[in-house]
Amino acid sequence: MAEAGVRGGSRRSFLKQVGAAGGAGAMFATMGALGLAPTAAADAREPAFRAPRSGDFTLKGRGAAKVVVGGGIAGLASAYELGKAGYDCTVLEARDRSGGRNFTVRGGDVTVDVDGVRQHARFSEGQYMNAGPGRIPQWMVTMDYCRELGVPLEVFTNTNANAYLYNEKAGMKAPVRYRTAKADVYGYVSELLAKATDKGALDKEITRADQERLMEFLKDYGDLGERMTYSGSERRGFTVDPAEAGVPGVRLGGVPSASEVFASGVGRYFSFEFGYDQAMLMFQPVGGMDRIPRALARAVGVHRIRTGAVVTKITDRADGVSVTYTHGGRTERIEADYCIAALPPNILAKTAHNLGGAVQSALEACRTFSAGKIGLEYKSRWWESDHRIYGGITETDLDLSHIWYPSYGHHGRRGLIVGYYNYGAQADAYAKLSPQARMERAVAQGVKIHGEKYRTELAAHLSHHWRQTPHLETAWHSLAGGPDAPVFAPLNKAAGRVYFAGDYLSHTDAWQHGAFTSARKAVGALHARVLA
Amino acid sequence: MAEAGVRGGSRRSFLKQVGAAGGAGAMFATMGALGLAPTAAADAREPAFRAPRSGDFTLKGRGAAKVVVGGGIAGLASAYELGKAGYDCTVLEARDRSGGRNFTVRGGDVTVDVDGVRQHARFSEGQYMNAGPGRIPQWMVTMDYCRELGVPLEVFTNTNANAYLYNEKAGMKAPVRYRTAKADVYGYVSELLAKATDKGALDKEITRADQERLMEFLKDYGDLGERMTYSGSERRGFTVDPAEAGVPGVRLGGVPSASEVFASGVGRYFSFEFGYDQAMLMFQPVGGMDRIPRALARAVGVHRIRTGAVVTKITDRADGVSVTYTHGGRTERIEADYCIAALPPNILAKTAHNLGGAVQSALEACRTFSAGKIGLEYKSRWWESDHRIYGGITETDLDLSHIWYPSYGHHGRRGLIVGYYNYGAQADAYAKLSPQARMERAVAQGVKIHGEKYRTELAAHLSHHWRQTPHLETAWHSLAGGPDAPVFAPLNKAAGRVYFAGDYLSHTDAWQHGAFTSARKAVGALHARVLA
Repeated sequence: MAEAGVRGGSRRSFLKQVGAAGGAGAMFATMGALGLAPTAAADAREPAFRAPRSGDFTLKGRGAAKVVVGGGIAGLASAYELGKAGYDCTVLEARDRSGGRNFTVRGGDVTVDVDGVRQHARFSEGQYMNAGPGRIPQWMVTMDYCRELGVPLEVFTNTNANAYLYNEKAGMKAPVRYRTAKADVYGYVSELLAKATDKGALDKEITRADQERLMEFLKDYGDLGERMTYSGSERRGFTVDPAEAGVPGVRLGGVPSASEVFASGVGRYFSFEFGYDQAMLMFQPVGGMDRIPRALARAVGVHRIRTGAVVTKITDRADGVSVTYTHGGRTERIEADYCIAALPPNILAKTAHNLGGAVQSALEACRTFSAGKIGLEYKSRWWESDHRIYGGITETDLDLSHIWYPSYGHHGRRGLIVGYYNYGAQADAYAKLSPQARMERAVAQGVKIHGEKYRTELAAHLSHHWRQTPHLETAWHSLAGGPDAPVFAPLNKAAGRVYFAGDYLSHTDAWQHGAFTSARKAVGALHARVLA
Repeated sequence: MAEAGVRGGSRRSFLKQVGAAGGAGAMFATMGALGLAPTAAADAREPAFRAPRSGDFTLKGRGAAKVVVGGGIAGLASAYELGKAGYDCTVLEARDRSGGRNFTVRGGDVTVDVDGVRQHARFSEGQYMNAGPGRIPQWMVTMDYCRELGVPLEVFTNTNANAYLYNEKAGMKAPVRYRTAKADVYGYVSELLAKATDKGALDKEITRADQERLMEFLKDYGDLGERMTYSGSERRGFTVDPAEAGVPGVRLGGVPSASEVFASGVGRYFSFEFGYDQAMLMFQPVGGMDRIPRALARAVGVHRIRTGAVVTKITDRADGVSVTYTHGGRTERIEADYCIAALPPNILAKTAHNLGGAVQSALEACRTFSAGKIGLEYKSRWWESDHRIYGGITETDLDLSHIWYPSYGHHGRRGLIVGYYNYGAQADAYAKLSPQARMERAVAQGVKIHGEKYRTELAAHLSHHWRQTPHLETAWHSLAGGPDAPVFAPLNKAAGRVYFAGDYLSHTDAWQHGAFTSARKAVGALHARVLA
């Protein structure tokens, strides 16, 4: 990727100039002449990162540079990249496993939250819940790390035409499938725009020829009838599916009016799948998201990783860094040449350090967020057999927000649904309840959409809330003005011999991509300094 | 499924009555009161099929009823279902493997077309092309057979935001990604409808309140600015992806005008994913589509399957059916109680039989179709590393029509692209060429979209055309007026002791679902007759 970055970069600058001068047409033409797809420059998806290499310098004679890092994705990635050049890294991880918020819950796992609430996951073999990150877009460097580390991937189903939409507050009496809602919304939008065009409302906006092209598009897009009106479509679905001769199928009836469709608010969910970070295809590691930190840990060397090591003090000195931590009830200290502080900023802000007031102010300016998920394991995969939903997300205006159907184990005996994935006040409201009460509330909501099997088939559950998770205490962060705002400048460079890394110091907060690219930045800067 | 079908059926009839009487609102409300999702009736995706069972009758004493069937999906499914009740089935298959058009090409396979053109597949281990069916929608019974037969599934990528659209004839100088084209089309459509609404063009169509809801939808759907105009969006993509602090990303530039967007014709591809049979999610068996016929063949019993058996005559008699066939140069005959003639109708029409003129007319009325695919194996998965395309379909107005990126083997060393999947005249044009010339033409076209690696990384190729495939001679069929038109009535019932089955006798022609449901119909009728 590094080479592609450099090569693509120069082409990109050239094309940007052409684009600025001549507009899209000129740029496309130039690209054509160059034999470039408009997105061929996307080879260069990110600024070049050149990983440290064993041949970069000889560490012999002065001893390997020692670096202390954290145990989340940013810390592990830092140790992994530095390790390529022979740095002697130690990973200090406060929790009992590395990976940070990349946490996959399986049967036998025990969680204890900051209030001492203990849960024992009783999920079956093969069932898991990715409590933290659950999806990877194609363009993110997380994909490259999966390739490099040999972590097999499969599709994560971010969008499924058969999943439901249910806006109870908007007065919907029953859920509708995505495909049905889309057919209705796109149908009426197309009909309305066709009518307006027909009335001449766009005569000043676009030419007659463009209007004709638009009408052609709308007819197809909205599945409009001869008179350019929408009266339902087989895209809505069927109550009896088309099958053998004699069974042409029975279309789903009860086409709502345009007014009913707009009032239902289902259209608000459609733009989700256009997002640069949410558009399908998305991926997940086969077997659980924590295959990534596990692979990183293996590559780093498990002997370098100390779990249960809670950092209590970071002292930057002219010739090195002291990191004090507690481990098994004892206080220990490690002396290193450098430190990449990859703790969450909210935790680092509560840790003693001598990095200065500006650093402390910046850390304190990183706002925390609540988010929670509940894993509901079922005795059967009734959503597949009864509802024909093989993965995907049901969107609601209920307090559970999203329901995720599993993107793995199709046709297996059991399956695990994420019964809520919610944020902010909704997450806090669930977090206040006991695990049992969270389950009962989530199930009562889910029954409204799926019927009684949502309750009767339930086999096991575990809920996880990030603000209540020790040593993390947040799901992600919000940095006012973004990570490049002046107040955060002290975190974007070294404080003496201490570097900072984490997804919060990126433009893709809450994505592993942010942690990886932030780590690469710290590694690059540290390595350049050592080489200098 | 049978039970669900019966139960769902009664609910369905009731709801249909409510729907007819009270409209959508009443129906939704009733469903809510019943605790039913609107699509809970979709439990009953198809009319109840009750598979024959071993307890249905005792075959002892009169000998097992003998049935002869064909070796495609319809034939294998017939033998499989009848076998559950102990029928003695023989599968006669003209080709050297069963499965019919469900044909997965792997390294080592040899194909010979009707003109004697021989191809030897030199694909690497693990690489394959599904020359026939390649995808399965969630709702089709093919999914149920995969579950029942233990055929593992994975997502087939029918839609990918990162795949390309390229309309050369429309004057596009370079491809655009789906996500970019969607952002532009939806952006301008939203802007135009917002303008029309603002001008009062919809005042007679929808209420002011609905207009406000519509405007809210359009702003989000089109990613419109404050003044409800479209001026690009991050949904289009980036030339430098957002990453660590300091790298906010550079948006893909050169936003085309509305006129340019409509003229490009990219919007014509968007409705594909709304189709009831094409909407994501779609699935494929892990390892190749022929895992389905292989599993069926195992379940039927390989000793019951005679490959290389070309049926030459079917004679219906009062007390049985004689089927004559050639096998290894010899003519053989099998006497059976019944026959399910699951040959393609165009082949059956050329086979001697005494089933009557109406049957022959019906068979001759089934029109055939051309379709072809070429598998291009590459030495690297450059579409993943360089283009960030992990599966999906690039749509074009070139003569290759569709390009399929593989939905399996991500991050592997090699990969296989379907370089064209085209129909009709385009397929015929390629079929006329030598395999080498087909490859050269397809590659020359693909280079326009992907650049030179499309040529330089090529390792192996094989093209397959269904009209040129012996014993099949068509990709699928077209029945004027559908399979329930009067002319086809003789095929939808028994001709004496001969039943007909095949996807052509369904409302989902060219889908395995059609073959399965058609087989179920024949099996049900035959079994009911035997039981009577």
